Amino acid sequence: MISKNKIKHLHSLLRKKNRQKFQQVILEGQRLIEESVKAGADIEYFCFTENIKNKISNNSLLNQVQSYMIPDIDLKKISDTKTSQGIIALVSTKKYTNTNLDLLNSNNLVILDGIQDPGNLGTIFRTCVWFGIKSIILTSNCSDPFNLKCVRSGVGAHFYLNQIIIEDSKKVADYLDKKKYSVLVADLKGNDILNIKKQDMWALILGSEAHGINPIFENFPKITIPKTGKVESLNVSVASGIILNQLLNN
Amino acid sequence: MISKNKIKHLHSLLRKKNRQKFQQVILEGQRLIEESVKAGADIEYFCFTENIKNKISNNSLLNQVQSYMIPDIDLKKISDTKTSQGIIALVSTKKYTNTNLDLLNSNNLVILDGIQDPGNLGTIFRTCVWFGIKSIILTSNCSDPFNLKCVRSGVGAHFYLNQIIIEDSKKVADYLDKKKYSVLVADLKGNDILNIKKQDMWALILGSEAHGINPIFENFPKITIPKTGKVESLNVSVASGIILNQLLNN
Repeated sequence: MISKNKIKHLHSLLRKKNRQKFQQVILEGQRLIEESVKAGADIEYFCFTENIKNKISNNSLLNQVQSYMIPDIDLKKISDTKTSQGIIALVSTKKYTNTNLDLLNSNNLVILDGIQDPGNLGTIFRTCVWFGIKSIILTSNCSDPFNLKCVRSGVGAHFYLNQIIIEDSKKVADYLDKKKYSVLVADLKGNDILNIKKQDMWALILGSEAHGINPIFENFPKITIPKTGKVESLNVSVASGIILNQLLNN
Repeated sequence: MISKNKIKHLHSLLRKKNRQKFQQVILEGQRLIEESVKAGADIEYFCFTENIKNKISNNSLLNQVQSYMIPDIDLKKISDTKTSQGIIALVSTKKYTNTNLDLLNSNNLVILDGIQDPGNLGTIFRTCVWFGIKSIILTSNCSDPFNLKCVRSGVGAHFYLNQIIIEDSKKVADYLDKKKYSVLVADLKGNDILNIKKQDMWALILGSEAHGINPIFENFPKITIPKTGKVESLNVSVASGIILNQLLNN
């Protein structure tokens, strides 16, 4: 049985401040945990309810990693969803996040500026990994990449990334200039993505739907997705998929 | 001031059964309402709190359509979000939904089968409208297109569509056969979307992430988005954007 101290610690990870302090996150539910294990996530321990244990008794994972039984009522305290799925994993995020741009060694970067919806953020992570992107930069006004909603919509993608770098927008802009990346800023007006020629070293900047492009990135070339219909804009995670497919596959 | 009966009626629209019975939906918040008005949504009346009225007193719309003051406490009852934005609109959905496939007259159809996440559903509506799609068919196991979450993530897109048809999967499959649509089913394996030739009359079927392709659509040709990375799958709304861009623009 899990100790009271552990429950208290797990509960504390609902807060961003504590997730950053301990560099840990809780994964909830069997699908997310399975996908994260496949991706090589660094699992510290599992907790599961008695009810779920009987259903996953053949799961060899539970025998390899420390695991604890947890009463339903305690799991509910830790969970941020209404219907807990009976199993959680505590994962170390130490190797994924840092703030040192000089550690980057990717030719293709995706930079997310001011994206505050954690569901969109996680969906973009998943899309980036699908297209083989290894490093993502978040500006400091993005939502926490290890927010539980973000991790849920990432469905394990976080743990395939080499690096999630959180840095100030100005420093990111200077870095892109210095390293001579071909920078493309997604916007509602700009060069049609269908006309963009393949490049070796590029960085794609996606900004907030609500606030538009950060003035710091204003001077980089803008690209846009051709529109036939009348709706004002596209969801930013959908836009990320369309642009990455165009840049990498066409 | 709004009557108690009206509040009771608005509250009843939180339930799908009542939305379908009355063919009405509530829109919450200024951005969604503005985008829906632009799209020509059929607004029956507005309700707003005293606080918000002072902020939008120049809005000519409030003078054109019947509008009521509503106490904060009553608006909270109607709202399905934690922080109400002080303004709602009651909209008739009568002209958008039906179950008669014979009313369709679009060369390009998007068919959503078993998509239950209302956020994804609304995001796909928004993406479809961006790419000029006029008619969407939902199979009867999809979530309600006028679920408030779905309407929120559609950001007005619902009201640009000519038709949202809800029909049984088998009848949809028979209709596509009869009308000789070139049918494309999005799947994890299939013909690479980069190799698909432009066609005049096509129907794209997108299925549930969790349950895969409905056996009823198994015999139609499958298409897939090329993958470089290791993540298992893409979010269905992201996939819809990539495929529509490829079919219509490349």
